[in-house]
Amino acid sequence: MNYSSAFIPTLREVPSDAVIASHRLMFRAGLLRKLANGLFTYLPLGLRSFRKVEQIIREEMDAIGALEIKPTVVVPGELWKESGRWDSMGESMLRVKNRLDNDFVVSPTAEEVFTATVRDELSSYRQLPLALYQINTKFRDEIRPRYGVMRGREFVMKDAYSWHADDKSLDDTYQAMGRAYRKIFKRCGLSVIPVKADSGAMGGSGSEEFMVESEIGDNTLILCKKCGYAANVEKAACKNDFTAQTSAEAAKAVAVSVPPIEKIDTPNVKTIEELCAFLKTEPQTFIKTLIYRAVNVELDISSAPGCANIERKKQSPDAPAVYPQAFFAVAIRGDLDVNEVKLASVLKASEVTLADDIDVTRLTNAPVGFAGPVGLSGLPIIIDHTVTGMNDAVTGALAKDLHYKHAAYGRDFEGWLIEDIRTVKAGDLCSQCGGELYTKMGNELGHIFKLGYKYTRSMNVTYLDENGKTQMPAMGCYGIGVDRTLASVIEEHHDEAGIIWPVSVAPYHVIIVPIKYDGAVKETADKLAAELTHNGIEVLLDDRNERPGVKFNDADLTGIPWRVVIGDKALSQNVPQVEIKRRGEKENRMIDLDKSAGELTERIREEIGTMKL
Amino acid sequence: MNYSSAFIPTLREVPSDAVIASHRLMFRAGLLRKLANGLFTYLPLGLRSFRKVEQIIREEMDAIGALEIKPTVVVPGELWKESGRWDSMGESMLRVKNRLDNDFVVSPTAEEVFTATVRDELSSYRQLPLALYQINTKFRDEIRPRYGVMRGREFVMKDAYSWHADDKSLDDTYQAMGRAYRKIFKRCGLSVIPVKADSGAMGGSGSEEFMVESEIGDNTLILCKKCGYAANVEKAACKNDFTAQTSAEAAKAVAVSVPPIEKIDTPNVKTIEELCAFLKTEPQTFIKTLIYRAVNVELDISSAPGCANIERKKQSPDAPAVYPQAFFAVAIRGDLDVNEVKLASVLKASEVTLADDIDVTRLTNAPVGFAGPVGLSGLPIIIDHTVTGMNDAVTGALAKDLHYKHAAYGRDFEGWLIEDIRTVKAGDLCSQCGGELYTKMGNELGHIFKLGYKYTRSMNVTYLDENGKTQMPAMGCYGIGVDRTLASVIEEHHDEAGIIWPVSVAPYHVIIVPIKYDGAVKETADKLAAELTHNGIEVLLDDRNERPGVKFNDADLTGIPWRVVIGDKALSQNVPQVEIKRRGEKENRMIDLDKSAGELTERIREEIGTMKL
Repeated sequence: MNYSSAFIPTLREVPSDAVIASHRLMFRAGLLRKLANGLFTYLPLGLRSFRKVEQIIREEMDAIGALEIKPTVVVPGELWKESGRWDSMGESMLRVKNRLDNDFVVSPTAEEVFTATVRDELSSYRQLPLALYQINTKFRDEIRPRYGVMRGREFVMKDAYSWHADDKSLDDTYQAMGRAYRKIFKRCGLSVIPVKADSGAMGGSGSEEFMVESEIGDNTLILCKKCGYAANVEKAACKNDFTAQTSAEAAKAVAVSVPPIEKIDTPNVKTIEELCAFLKTEPQTFIKTLIYRAVNVELDISSAPGCANIERKKQSPDAPAVYPQAFFAVAIRGDLDVNEVKLASVLKASEVTLADDIDVTRLTNAPVGFAGPVGLSGLPIIIDHTVTGMNDAVTGALAKDLHYKHAAYGRDFEGWLIEDIRTVKAGDLCSQCGGELYTKMGNELGHIFKLGYKYTRSMNVTYLDENGKTQMPAMGCYGIGVDRTLASVIEEHHDEAGIIWPVSVAPYHVIIVPIKYDGAVKETADKLAAELTHNGIEVLLDDRNERPGVKFNDADLTGIPWRVVIGDKALSQNVPQVEIKRRGEKENRMIDLDKSAGELTERIREEIGTMKL
Repeated sequence: MNYSSAFIPTLREVPSDAVIASHRLMFRAGLLRKLANGLFTYLPLGLRSFRKVEQIIREEMDAIGALEIKPTVVVPGELWKESGRWDSMGESMLRVKNRLDNDFVVSPTAEEVFTATVRDELSSYRQLPLALYQINTKFRDEIRPRYGVMRGREFVMKDAYSWHADDKSLDDTYQAMGRAYRKIFKRCGLSVIPVKADSGAMGGSGSEEFMVESEIGDNTLILCKKCGYAANVEKAACKNDFTAQTSAEAAKAVAVSVPPIEKIDTPNVKTIEELCAFLKTEPQTFIKTLIYRAVNVELDISSAPGCANIERKKQSPDAPAVYPQAFFAVAIRGDLDVNEVKLASVLKASEVTLADDIDVTRLTNAPVGFAGPVGLSGLPIIIDHTVTGMNDAVTGALAKDLHYKHAAYGRDFEGWLIEDIRTVKAGDLCSQCGGELYTKMGNELGHIFKLGYKYTRSMNVTYLDENGKTQMPAMGCYGIGVDRTLASVIEEHHDEAGIIWPVSVAPYHVIIVPIKYDGAVKETADKLAAELTHNGIEVLLDDRNERPGVKFNDADLTGIPWRVVIGDKALSQNVPQVEIKRRGEKENRMIDLDKSAGELTERIREEIGTMKL
């Protein structure tokens, strides 16, 4: 391809809203243009790399036996009503009515459509396991689209779904997907951090996110320096600095050594900071007690304090019965934060939020700021593991300006549940090896998870097992964002001058830069381009009538892996030579012209091959 | 690929709404499933063929230097307001508001988006010509989607657009596209009829449609048996059965031979049929006169009768001035129909429709049914070519129950314009060679046209020419429906038993059918599959534990071009043999096993190669 015919509008200026490298470089190198906020057009150079990422994903999906299909992008709203997500997806889902007043959705994800397709075709266990995928357009109406295609409104996603007769089969496909994802990212030249993740609004358990480190990442990752443990902070565990105890054990231990619990006046003291200052002590000695409101609680709480009269309801005949709303007190050590994702997971609730002040006052019989586990009745208390190690603590006394000191777990209060619900933070110790944990910000590129029966139940998918009995298949779900993966490659591979493409996803493998595209130089450039092209190497030939400096700058900016410079002087030597240079490396070297096509071909093929291993 | 892992749910039953072969067979052969009315999911087998059609189109676009880009599917409504099509596109365009109340469009076509992209990058004549294309999702809310993907709501279209510094350059690209389209359809195994077409709502002149014959086609084609002339009836011309004359010539010719015009009573006679019966003559002797209302007339009518006071208006500063509404009388021979597309084209009007009765009565001073060109004033008369040859005609006398006879063009009436505005019909004579014309129904697969300046003007696209002067580029536009092309391949290539895929777009090239997938037969089948796959041949291996009859039926239904049957008996001969059969041919033949892979590979490669020539 000749540069002058390739429509590569490079820019010197950086778009004012481009704060990250990939966004800046995709615009400057002429890969991308903006259509509107969060909507972009891939120009020819960008699309070439984009298609290569797609193709790598396709090959690895095919290799594990997943089959590509193509549903529409605009899909019937009816399917989303069946699954219940018409209501739960919120405003990021683009809903449309057509001229006949039918509801449609511009797909933000495709569990419903795939499930409906399989539902109609599945009859026998012999059809299982089945894994289907698409690489197709998605739309999510981000409220604040930014960072270019890293967080756009319309994007392309590879989303795969699988169906299984048993958990073993689901796990096999889940593991195969995990391996395929590692290969995909490796082939794209990306260093990903696979982390145990919460599966969020998608439901189900058993999930792994594939993250790349990013200063503008949406996710906080908890990592261990020693053993490589990695988790999303939403799910991360850490080692307790003591052993969690039963209340009986705890009570026994404190009987001799801790003074009896005692009420103290704490006038005008409400926050932990104020309390620390007032009592001249550290937050670690306090028990923080928070009142939470939980929605759609699936956990059986009929025996819990204050819950006997809450009625359970079903949202649909096949759905599990849930408590539409319930309140909980959560006690945790004063220096720590409650992890609401862990809490929701413990309660099997669709949502947990801090209760309103009016509910706190009603439930604790005290103003906000004086809740504590001692004497608190009328709602279930959930005790974080850390609190079971506290036997001489300060905590709220359920009355204005009053606290307790010498409060001891097991002796002075108990909980209804004892769980790990703390948010892990840098400096905590690794639950696996005891090493020190640290944090990074990350962007999610891919996510695999076991959905279980959420969709097959709500959408009534069944098959007949070996005994002719009707069964419901288990389901898995596996996504990769193509645009975000491409942008992340640039984030990881660039320098001040521009992009440094890994060969596997470079728009072209070689850029040939004739110093002046004329005479013998032109002839040589054309011949070398033809020879490389014949070998299957993708060549961009800079045929423009520009100064060499302009051409070199554009070659660096667009990041083509190999640059060949052809000039009169080196050509007219006894043995004609050209200069070759690997983008990102400082040295260039002269090479005999007649060996150049062979060597470049070999190097490029080898490199692509190695990335596949 | 093993059949049992390929998710090919073939059906014996035909979906009740499937009235055409492609719709029936795409469902029965497991290529497609319905998501909702007009929305379909391509299953793995269907998608493989779909991608091959896409790839053929891509290769031919790339071959003529068009560059692929990828805008979004959901695009800002603002762009459509700029071009004026936000209002003119009607209800088939899916409009969406997002959570911020911004207007979006789910692209039905992409002139606006491409024009906006080029507008921002185009500065110099050196960037021209430029041709860009996408292969991407489109949505049109068909009011009656039917015939499967032949007329669906969501579909994939290749749409290309080009920009040019002059008409010569536009014509060069237009011609190159025409040649590429012929190659594309040939490579897909399709017989297309390229016809001169009207460019309809797209505007502009110079256009060609690529049609396939279809009983359920949307278009009537006019074809010449003798010279191959082909045109859409909307634009078709034919030979006049006389020479069109000026009014002076005509007047001279009739002066001696035709009796003077004479009024006759025609009580209770209104239609041409009634008049024929009353006067015992044929419709060819009548002059039919119709009153039309035209909207947004660009033609200068300031000098036409009754038009001096109509004010011209501009819809936007750069748009041409138009008459918002004007009325015209159209006189045509009684046995012929007015072609409203030709009429609109003559008037450069956005729309023409028959005037309401109240307007007809007002403008002719007579009840409906008595209009005629003699003595008609107050509006411009447009005379079809045929009427200039009529010198002894019957026509309405502008009063109830009165007609004229012996009316002669040139002597008794004249027109403001003389134009070809008749609809050609079967039996008319070819304008090129005089051969007899006949009609066919056709479906449009592709369309190329010269848009001219419609979008570059309304969206203000400019560049600087060699002299540094600001110029506006001319534009062309070139579309192919991918789904419809695929369905048309099946329409043209099938029999009672199923699809007969051309090798180039077949989902697999070879289906291997082991009589029983076991022992030596299994071993041979696996080995042959591996050998063919190694040669780049795509193989489906029917590993199912089904009766041979079931396997043969599915092989015929799915239409894989080459079938290889492997059985115990032929394998155990001195020289082991297998049976090969071309789908669609009756004979099968035995071939030595050790030559089978070689021969099949060669035949398939040769066939794909030939289709490219």
